[in-house]
Order: sequence, then structure tokens, then C-alpha cells
Amino acid sequence: MANDLLKGKKGIIFGALNDKSIAWKVAERAYEEGAEIVLSNTAGALRMGEINALGEKINAPIIAADATNVEELDLAIDKTMEHFGGGFDFVLHSIGMSPNVRKKIPYDDLNYVFFNKTLDISAISFHKILRVCKQKDAINEWGSALALSYIAAQRTFFGYDDMADAKALLESIARSFGYIYGKDKKVRVNTISQSPTMTTAGSGVSGLDLLFDFAERMSPLGNADALDCADYCIMLFSDLARKVTMQNLYHDGGFASIGISEEAMDKYKS
Amino acid sequence: MANDLLKGKKGIIFGALNDKSIAWKVAERAYEEGAEIVLSNTAGALRMGEINALGEKINAPIIAADATNVEELDLAIDKTMEHFGGGFDFVLHSIGMSPNVRKKIPYDDLNYVFFNKTLDISAISFHKILRVCKQKDAINEWGSALALSYIAAQRTFFGYDDMADAKALLESIARSFGYIYGKDKKVRVNTISQSPTMTTAGSGVSGLDLLFDFAERMSPLGNADALDCADYCIMLFSDLARKVTMQNLYHDGGFASIGISEEAMDKYKS
Amino acid sequence: MANDLLKGKKGIIFGALNDKSIAWKVAERAYEEGAEIVLSNTAGALRMGEINALGEKINAPIIAADATNVEELDLAIDKTMEHFGGGFDFVLHSIGMSPNVRKKIPYDDLNYVFFNKTLDISAISFHKILRVCKQKDAINEWGSALALSYIAAQRTFFGYDDMADAKALLESIARSFGYIYGKDKKVRVNTISQSPTMTTAGSGVSGLDLLFDFAERMSPLGNADALDCADYCIMLFSDLARKVTMQNLYHDGGFASIGISEEAMDKYKS
Amino acid sequence: MANDLLKGKKGIIFGALNDKSIAWKVAERAYEEGAEIVLSNTAGALRMGEINALGEKINAPIIAADATNVEELDLAIDKTMEHFGGGFDFVLHSIGMSPNVRKKIPYDDLNYVFFNKTLDISAISFHKILRVCKQKDAINEWGSALALSYIAAQRTFFGYDDMADAKALLESIARSFGYIYGKDKKVRVNTISQSPTMTTAGSGVSGLDLLFDFAERMSPLGNADALDCADYCIMLFSDLARKVTMQNLYHDGGFASIGISEEAMDKYKS
Repeated sequence: MANDLLKGKKGIIFGALNDKSIAWKVAERAYEEGAEIVLSNTAGALRMGEINALGEKINAPIIAADATNVEELDLAIDKTMEHFGGGFDFVLHSIGMSPNVRKKIPYDDLNYVFFNKTLDISAISFHKILRVCKQKDAINEWGSALALSYIAAQRTFFGYDDMADAKALLESIARSFGYIYGKDKKVRVNTISQSPTMTTAGSGVSGLDLLFDFAERMSPLGNADALDCADYCIMLFSDLARKVTMQNLYHDGGFASIGISEEAMDKYKS
Repeated sequence: MANDLLKGKKGIIFGALNDKSIAWKVAERAYEEGAEIVLSNTAGALRMGEINALGEKINAPIIAADATNVEELDLAIDKTMEHFGGGFDFVLHSIGMSPNVRKKIPYDDLNYVFFNKTLDISAISFHKILRVCKQKDAINEWGSALALSYIAAQRTFFGYDDMADAKALLESIARSFGYIYGKDKKVRVNTISQSPTMTTAGSGVSGLDLLFDFAERMSPLGNADALDCADYCIMLFSDLARKVTMQNLYHDGGFASIGISEEAMDKYKS
Repeated sequence: MANDLLKGKKGIIFGALNDKSIAWKVAERAYEEGAEIVLSNTAGALRMGEINALGEKINAPIIAADATNVEELDLAIDKTMEHFGGGFDFVLHSIGMSPNVRKKIPYDDLNYVFFNKTLDISAISFHKILRVCKQKDAINEWGSALALSYIAAQRTFFGYDDMADAKALLESIARSFGYIYGKDKKVRVNTISQSPTMTTAGSGVSGLDLLFDFAERMSPLGNADALDCADYCIMLFSDLARKVTMQNLYHDGGFASIGISEEAMDKYKS
Repeated sequence: MANDLLKGKKGIIFGALNDKSIAWKVAERAYEEGAEIVLSNTAGALRMGEINALGEKINAPIIAADATNVEELDLAIDKTMEHFGGGFDFVLHSIGMSPNVRKKIPYDDLNYVFFNKTLDISAISFHKILRVCKQKDAINEWGSALALSYIAAQRTFFGYDDMADAKALLESIARSFGYIYGKDKKVRVNTISQSPTMTTAGSGVSGLDLLFDFAERMSPLGNADALDCADYCIMLFSDLARKVTMQNLYHDGGFASIGISEEAMDKYKS
């Protein structure tokens, strides 16, 4: 169902790991819609090697960069601009990780060094990307930057722990930077608050299966999957959404606006 | 910039009055994107005659209906389905009017008969349209219903008075009906919270010029205009947003997420 | 635990029916805290007779008034001011009823005459009370008006149907009127969004037991009961909250900020 | 207007600097209402010496602690419990500082070491306090922990920069920890989103005078001052609010619910 929606546009996508990744699907769909793509992930992620297949398929160079490291980002954006012969039009930030969650450290006993890492990897990295882009004037006017978030930024989901705080910080950074990038360069900055998704990162959250089932029954349209999310990203990269900025957009089959559905209650009471 | 985004889709658009109307722009853009359209407005609005030009241009029949009247809606949806030879895929509700605001009756001295009219015309009519559509199974699976709202539903703007209450009710109806239409028929229901827009309806609000200027300076991307709004509606009608429902989506250049911008403060302090 | 928090203050309380009513508890607690009270309810509710016992206990006159009827409110406020020898300091609106919910009419098949009644009884009556009070300058400066709401105004709870829309309208009216009453007379207007509560009105909602259990497990502090709610109302009537206005205040043991609790999930998965 | 609201209660207050501080007013009001108090601030702040006068006045020991340092907090909470002979009932966190804002480093050019400090001092310190308290079981059942926030957590105010992100993180921590502390120990955790206030900390924000004037005209009840805020804190420490948790409570004269007031527009247009 390609419509050339991103024809002539260029973008960089951070965080594709394998074909379960939302970022992977976004890259594929953006390519289908006519965009040129650069892929970036950490050196460690690249060593896993799966992303090479994606790079070949969509004719995208792969640039190693640790998005928490300004110097590496600096180089990566330089290389990206060199590849494109100038600026680009969209950015996807699909990066998140909590060492505390991984190691199952309870929230009321957080390791603060890990907490800083969680915030740096999952939220501050978005500031760093935007900052490096803005300093290099890398994103064209009316460009679009997106980061992936989760409703835990607004409501507490047990077990999501310090990732919830990271998502709240991420969404705040999107607003704070969105104001500045918007007025200075007409670049919009938004976050998508996505349904729980069966990605490799997501599967690290204990109890994801149950959460997935609960969200599925709560949401009148069911959970949005990675491909649905990719479609929504395409839309938000396109010119059709050029006046939308500083928003957190729920993409979740209705979950965010449900108190309790009959379907979830039927399961609950049984 | 047509992309066949709505190719093969059909929809009904309520509320186009003249070429300043958002609904008019939506109809034009939907047609450009490949959709077949039916237009509807009140008999009174149709007598003004401007809509005929639009109907001819986009090859759309025009069906008179008072959207507060279930019987008239019943007939209108029947005619629409007859025209299309079956169901359709999207609905736009761009209907709003407050006799209290028009007659400049202060909010603390509301005429309650008028208040009921404000609510009926501006909010309950959306329920009536959805209800008639659902009873006739008129909207195809994964169809999209949209209504236009304003941020006065969340925050008080002096002079907007009982229209604010109507918008709050409209957004609630979108959620309440969205849950049911979603789970039963996979139809999504959303509202767009649009920048102040220089339409014929908008110009009835006293002080719109000032509000427009304030919003323009507050919003990092400036106000979204009627054509921008039409683009966003197209996106939300398309399959790219098929898992978005029960949402109120700010389309306002960033206004909703601004406390105070430097640009507005510069004017304020001068 | 009386603290003379409302010593010297006077108030009118709408909607006490029997000793399960939140309004009943508010009246008792306000009296304990030193306030003088007037009670009001419909003639029909008064005929049930239980409120007489409350009136005697707290030395409060009982004034019949249909809060949807401006003329009756006019008389009731006159009588109240006569009783107090002037203005008063607080108002509680604890009024809500949906004929559609009572008669189990599905939301997508609403009776619109009933819908208007739902809105009039549950939401517009608050506007009418405030309007009559303001016209008579009945509420003293820095007075406090409160209405009871429910989180269905923000998120859909199946079965709550058009009461959800009424609560959304009620909260909007509180904002709209709060702006005007605040700037003109320093009167604050707020709503409390209360946990599901086992009142006579609440018990009309089908499935309340299940909802109550779900909310209890979701809320880290458990559901707030009628007496808890009365305490919070006292606080909001007192001078300690005199700069709080146009707010909807969740009083629900934490429910509003929970996505999913471990306790609810344990029950859900079992 | 003391009412013995906190009679028999004990609490620790972080962040009182001088008699302009909100924390100072809270300490005074809590004492008036019958509470026993311990004061804490950094060694640097204590060296300024003004807090000694407060300590004497309200008979409160002063304990030096850097709230970003878990070891120092550990000692401070031990000393506090020793002083009280056991647990206590309330905690106030009134701590915030951004080196980036102080040094007027633009948000799109943040110093990331400073950013980490901003987050650590203004947000993560609240986690550290709660964590140390919970590990020592220092807060009694139905106790109340409060932190002071600002609406910049939700909407961008130019010049507030990374403090906005810190406040968003702070509010998220209140929710995340509030869930756990609530279910385990019935301790509630909330934030108050306070009007711009003329404190020593506030005066570091450039353009505070203008912001103060804008907020004053936007808010129907005018800005809430430090003493108003102290009253609201008292209320939230008291048992009257014992079922309120995981909330961010606007205490701002109505500002948060205003889109544009007539009073602000009159100044804007002049």
C-alpha cells in the first residue's frame, strides 16, 4: 500500500535491531514510501549482524553510534549528511533500556548509577541527537523528529519501574526541544505512545505476555503492532502532519482512553 | 501533493459552508486523494448555494440534513449508502454553533434553551450521526469518524463560553461511542483540536483576531490553517492511522504544550 | 477528629438522600467542623423522609428544590440567605442520574430526551446553582463550590454510558464558571473525582460490585469511601485551599495514576 | 488560624533557606498546627545561617544533608528518627536547582554534566529520600510525602529549560514511588504544582517578574503565594487527604485551566 508519501525525503533511524523492532518496520515502510534511509545503532547491536540484511534490502548505509555519546553522534550525523549530500527530513529515536529492570532491581531499591544509565540511554539520548542535528542544521525545515514512548509515562504499570520515569523525561525533552526547534527551524518533535509490542526489547519486561493480553482486551481495536506503528510514523514524517508538534500521540487501539472494558472485566471476574 | 491515500474510499462530510470552511478543504483534499464524497449540511446552509460549486467540482451529491434530527439523518445516510452502493469509510463532523455566543449572552447568564441548542448542534449531533451509521452498519470496518474540536474543552478562553462546554461534551461522546464502535465494528472515532481558524463560523467569536494573533505567537510552528487541518484529517481517514481511536489530537502548531513562548511574552510586555 | 476547620462558615448541600450518601457525610462532617448547614434535595427525595433525621441532628433546615429548575433554585437560595441572614461560604453539588442507565438503554441507542435529562440533572444543574448564587451574590468572597465527579469523564468505563458524558460536561462547567466566579467574586469552583462509592445512587450502576473490586485492587491505598470524601470536601471548603480553582481533583486512592497494579493483575490472570 | 490539624504529627522538611522559602512557611505553619519538625538542608545552605532562627522559633533541630547523597540521607533520617523517638508522618521536598539555567546555557546547548545535576538535585533526590525512608520504615502508616513542582512539567515556558524536564521527572518519580509506598505502607506521595513564587530560588529564573505578572493576570484568583502554598501543604499532610496519592495538584489560582483570560489579553493587546 505504498503511496510515495515520503518521496524525496531522507531520514535517519536509530534503534533497529532485528525484524521484530519497530524501528526496523519503520525503515522498511519509509523505504516503500520513497524515502532514503540511514540506519544507526550501537556498535554492539551492529555486531549481532541482522541489521545488515535490512541495510541491503533498503539500500541504507549503517552507521555505528552510541546515542549517549555526543562525539559519536557528531560523527554519525556528519556521515549521514555526507551520504545524503546535505540535510535530511526525519529522525526516529527508538532507543530504550533500563539496567535496573533487566537485573530485576526493585524500584524502591534502584541502583542510581543504573538509573542514570536508564535516563541517559532512553531519554537524554534524544536530546543529544536533536542537539547535534540542530547545531549542524541537519534537519530540513518542516522536518519531523519522533521518539517512541509508552503510557507508563502517565500511569504506573507495576514492573515498568524506572523506564516509566525515563519515558516521562523523554516526553518532556520532546516538548522542551520541540519549542526551540520549532520556532528556530520549523522542525517538529513528537513522541508516539505505543501499545505494548512484542519486540526483543519489550520481551525483557517481565510479565509482558500478561500486560499484552490485558491491553489487548482493554483496547477496542486491540493492540497496535510494530507494523501499525510504522504506518503511524510514516504519517507523522509526512507533510500531512506538518503542524503537529510537542505532542505525545497515543497509538494503542484506544487503551489510553479506557477505564475498564467489558472484555477485560469478563476475564478479570472469571 | 496527492498520493492516492484515500483511493477506493468513500466518505460523508458534514458542515462545509463556503471555501473558508475546514470541511470544504477536507472535501477537496479527500477528493484529490482519490476518495468519493457525499456532502451534507442543513437546508438553510444549502440555500446559500456556495456548496453547489464544491459538489460539482468534486462530483459529490449534496444531501440536506439537520444533524440534530435523527429522522433527517436516517434519510441522509440511506441516500448516502444508496449513492455509494453500500457502506462508506469515513465521516467528518464539522458542526458547531452557540446561540448564546452569537447573541453575546454572558456565560453566567446563559439562556438554557440556547444552551441545549449549543450542545445539541455542536456535540450531540455527533452521537446522532454515529448512532444512525451504526444502526445501518453504514461505516465499513476500520472506518474513521472525526469531529473538529478546540482546546477550550480543556482550558477556559474568555468569550468562548458555552461552546467550551459543548466541545468537552463532544470529546466525551467521541470516547464513549468510540469504545462501542471500536469493539463492535473496528470503527475508530477521534476529535481534532484545531488552532483558531479564520472560518465563517470562527469569525462569529468576538475577539478572534486577537486570539488568532496570541495563538500564532504562542505556537512554535504558528497556527495550523484550514488546509493544514484538511491534510491531518486525510491522514486520520487513511489506513495509516487505523489503530488510533478515542483520542483528541491537538493540531495547533504546538500551542497546547506551551505555557508561555518568548514571542508571546515579547508582545505581552511591550 | 474535629478541628473547627469550618468555624463561622455556612454552606448549602445538595443531594443528601440517606446515610450512605456522600452529601450526608459531608453535611455531618461540616457540622462537626463548626459550619452551619442548609440541606436541599428534590421534593421527591425529601418525601422519603430520611433526611429529616439528618436535619435534626445537625440543626439544618431542609429546603425542597429541583436543581434543574431555576425558579425553584431562586426560591431556595433566597430562603437559604434568609436563614443565614446573608451570604454563605460553600456549596456542594452531589446530584446525578441517568434515565438511560437506569433503564439499561445501550449507549449506541440512547433515548435523546433521557440524554438531555441526564445532562440537565447531572451537569447543567451545577451551572444553574452557581448562576443563581452569583446573581444574588450569595457566596461570600473566597467561598468554595464543589461538585462530585468520576473518572469516566476522562476514560470510558463500560456501562457508565451517558453519565460519562454528563461528568465531562460537569467538569467543563466547573472550569467555565470557575473562571468568571473567580475573577468577579474570588469564589473557587472545583470538582472531586471520587472512587466508586457504595451509595444508593451508585448501586444503580450495574456491575458496581465488580468495578469496586477492580478499583480497590488497582488503587495502592484502596478506594476512598464516602467518609474519606467528606473529609476531602471539608478541606476544600476550608481556607487552606483558597487558591485552588477550576480543578478536577482525583480522590481515589491512586486509581487515576495506575495503568495496572500487581494486585489487579494477580486477580486478572488467575 | 491554627486548628491543631497536625497535632501529634511529626515531619521533616527539606529545603528551607530563608523566610521567603516555601519550605520555611510550611515549617512555620506545620508548627502552628501542632506538628513537631526537623529541618534539613545542605551544609552550604546551613552556613548562610538564616535557618537557625527558624529552628529556634519552631523548636526544630537542623540536620545537614545533601539530598543527592544516599549516605548523608541515611544519617539524616537516622538522626531524625532518633530525635522523634521513632517514625514520622510527613516529608516535604522543596529542592530544585539547574546549573544550566543559572549559567544561562541555552537548552539546545545544554551541558550534560550540569543536566545530570539538575535531575539529581531537583528530582532524583526525592527518590533517594523516599527510598531511605522506606528502607528504615521511617514514615508512619498513612503518612504523606510531598514535593513542589511547576506546570513547566506539562507545558513549555521559555527560559525554564532543563528545570522543566526535572519537574517532569520529579512528578513521575512521585507516581512510581507512590504506587509502591502506598501498597506496602499506606504512605501517599504527591506533588504540588505551585504558582511562580518570589523565592530566592525563583528569583534566579530570568524574567520571573514578567512571568509572575502574566500568571497573575491569567489566574482568576491571582497567583498563590508561599503562605497559601504552606496552607495547602498542611492540608495534604493532614488526615483529611489520606486517600489522595500519586497526584500532581495544581495550586495556582486557576492558571492551569486557563487558555487566555480577559485580563491577560487586555494587557497583551495594549
